[in-house]
Amino acid sequence: MSSTDRIYNFSSGPSMLPLSVLEQAAAEMTNYRGCGMSVMEMSHRSKVYIDIFDETKADFKRIMKIPDTHEILFMQGGATLQFSAVPMNLIGKTGKADYAVTGNFSDLAMKEARKYGDINIACSSGDKNHTYIPAQDEISLADDSSYFYYCSNNTIYGTEWNYVPETGGVPLVCDMSSNILSAAVDVSKYGVIFAGAQKNMAPAGVAVVIIDKSLAGAELPHTPKLMSYQAMIDSDSMLNTPPCYTIYMFGLVLKWLEKQGGIEGMEKIKAEKAKILYDVLDDSDFYIGCAEKTARSYMNVTFRTPSEELDAKFAKDSTSAGFDNLKGHRVAGGLRASIYNAMPIEGVLELARFMREFEKGI
Amino acid sequence: MSSTDRIYNFSSGPSMLPLSVLEQAAAEMTNYRGCGMSVMEMSHRSKVYIDIFDETKADFKRIMKIPDTHEILFMQGGATLQFSAVPMNLIGKTGKADYAVTGNFSDLAMKEARKYGDINIACSSGDKNHTYIPAQDEISLADDSSYFYYCSNNTIYGTEWNYVPETGGVPLVCDMSSNILSAAVDVSKYGVIFAGAQKNMAPAGVAVVIIDKSLAGAELPHTPKLMSYQAMIDSDSMLNTPPCYTIYMFGLVLKWLEKQGGIEGMEKIKAEKAKILYDVLDDSDFYIGCAEKTARSYMNVTFRTPSEELDAKFAKDSTSAGFDNLKGHRVAGGLRASIYNAMPIEGVLELARFMREFEKGI
Repeated sequence: MSSTDRIYNFSSGPSMLPLSVLEQAAAEMTNYRGCGMSVMEMSHRSKVYIDIFDETKADFKRIMKIPDTHEILFMQGGATLQFSAVPMNLIGKTGKADYAVTGNFSDLAMKEARKYGDINIACSSGDKNHTYIPAQDEISLADDSSYFYYCSNNTIYGTEWNYVPETGGVPLVCDMSSNILSAAVDVSKYGVIFAGAQKNMAPAGVAVVIIDKSLAGAELPHTPKLMSYQAMIDSDSMLNTPPCYTIYMFGLVLKWLEKQGGIEGMEKIKAEKAKILYDVLDDSDFYIGCAEKTARSYMNVTFRTPSEELDAKFAKDSTSAGFDNLKGHRVAGGLRASIYNAMPIEGVLELARFMREFEKGI
Repeated sequence: MSSTDRIYNFSSGPSMLPLSVLEQAAAEMTNYRGCGMSVMEMSHRSKVYIDIFDETKADFKRIMKIPDTHEILFMQGGATLQFSAVPMNLIGKTGKADYAVTGNFSDLAMKEARKYGDINIACSSGDKNHTYIPAQDEISLADDSSYFYYCSNNTIYGTEWNYVPETGGVPLVCDMSSNILSAAVDVSKYGVIFAGAQKNMAPAGVAVVIIDKSLAGAELPHTPKLMSYQAMIDSDSMLNTPPCYTIYMFGLVLKWLEKQGGIEGMEKIKAEKAKILYDVLDDSDFYIGCAEKTARSYMNVTFRTPSEELDAKFAKDSTSAGFDNLKGHRVAGGLRASIYNAMPIEGVLELARFMREFEKGI
């Protein structure tokens, strides 16, 4: 299989993986490094698998510079199950939490959290269809919150927080599903970071949780055992069989990422890639960027043409031209190019060329 | 990669997958049937992926003869999250449930259920270290139970229910993680069947739930949305991104299974495979079968030698001889050969030969 048979897939998630990672997974599929079995077939308690698991954790810890105060958990259920796990584990302290609602997923998380306690909407960008990120002085914190929750990148609306909210000591909880590993993060500032894997890390099927260990152990009584951060810490994420193969794939992606220069490398490349597409928008009287400039996401570039008909034509013509998944999310409409870590710059350059030609052809 | 490089892996789960399935997955890894991307990279809302998903569901429905009264769900968190989901969804009706405790996993499920209601232990094999399955007349049902829970095959102890408990109309809930797709099941008798995939279905990372739709929709207020059977029915298991690739692997396994004669084929082969190993035990004064004969599992053959030292030597020597994972579970000790659907009969024959030679050599 040559790479030229592959298309540029701008899906918002699950999304592209590095070709070299897929090739390695294929080569190791029936017999992992001479052990006589596939990673899919390994007991999660076997030495051969534990080595994969431990190395993946260690690589992630090093790459993300995760301090020893924090533990890395591999959980199932994606970010969505964390929408429940976060309040079930953390809200018991005071019964209250702050939520910043800046898009679809933080809105869903906030609604789920209401089952478990009193929720204060500390800020919302809903007044302008989530096209911006509220500034620090627009955030109003409740008294006595157990935590402050936000989503650092809004996949659907194409906005991204360009600062870390200041909460005066209230633990920060952040859904980084769509921009983890794309920028340096001071993990010590966070109580909990979580991310579904299927954008910047691995195939769908695992959520990575980074938790300040001092916050665990106070879950509500009805918390399912598998969702207890403390139980997961105590069992090193092996309370039951973890999604072993997905964790292995994550490990391969981390090795690839380090070869690209780690997070510093990703930060440089993502800035180049995003600039290419935003320049097309800014140089054009045809395309309209959806997000306010100061809130633009490096991962999801959202835009429109002058009409829904032309949006549809763009989606169709781009697919014929060898791209895919450029149609916007159903709740936002328009168009969207998701350019996560694994999207090569060539794909972005070709899309930019296509966009300019499409504009000329109208 | 030739099949001769592979070992016979008797792991209790994750466990062997058919070699042809792994080879097909490897061949399709970087470009699924000419679509230009890996299954791992597909949007779960894309037509190409929905076709995989729908076909897998349809194949499973046909193979298991699942009636239209029941829905198939793909959930995350393995069987363990179902230990919580079952009571959260079903116990609200009366606040009570019956549990049959016949091994480690039904015991864990029972303990988890106690968080959510009054639990009656309807029967237990704990008095004889779970070496048998209680008979129907040893089951004592509570009044007014919301459901009756049992685990049809006990992986650790090597016992299997050879009858369906009669509960007088109380909905049956069954954990079939370790024997699903190995025998015909009258699904209409069950309220809920669930199974973690990593024994007879697919790699770890998905749990299949078959639910009588009339039982859904009565979950406790604190139930995480992703664990609500009704919400999962309403979204066709796509409330969030499902573990897409694991479901694809399940689909490949189902195609393989149909080529082996479907469930009828599996029933025939499993009986042959189990007989080969149980005959070794019964013909020997050296090996001791752990389970009572009437309760022997077709999937997990548990046995001992006369001493723990010889058990350890057996585990070590069998590994050197090209087998793997024959050591018993840490809570039960001894030895165990797990011979799920994907274990070829050749592996079982070779193990039987090895067992006889090991005995002679002592």
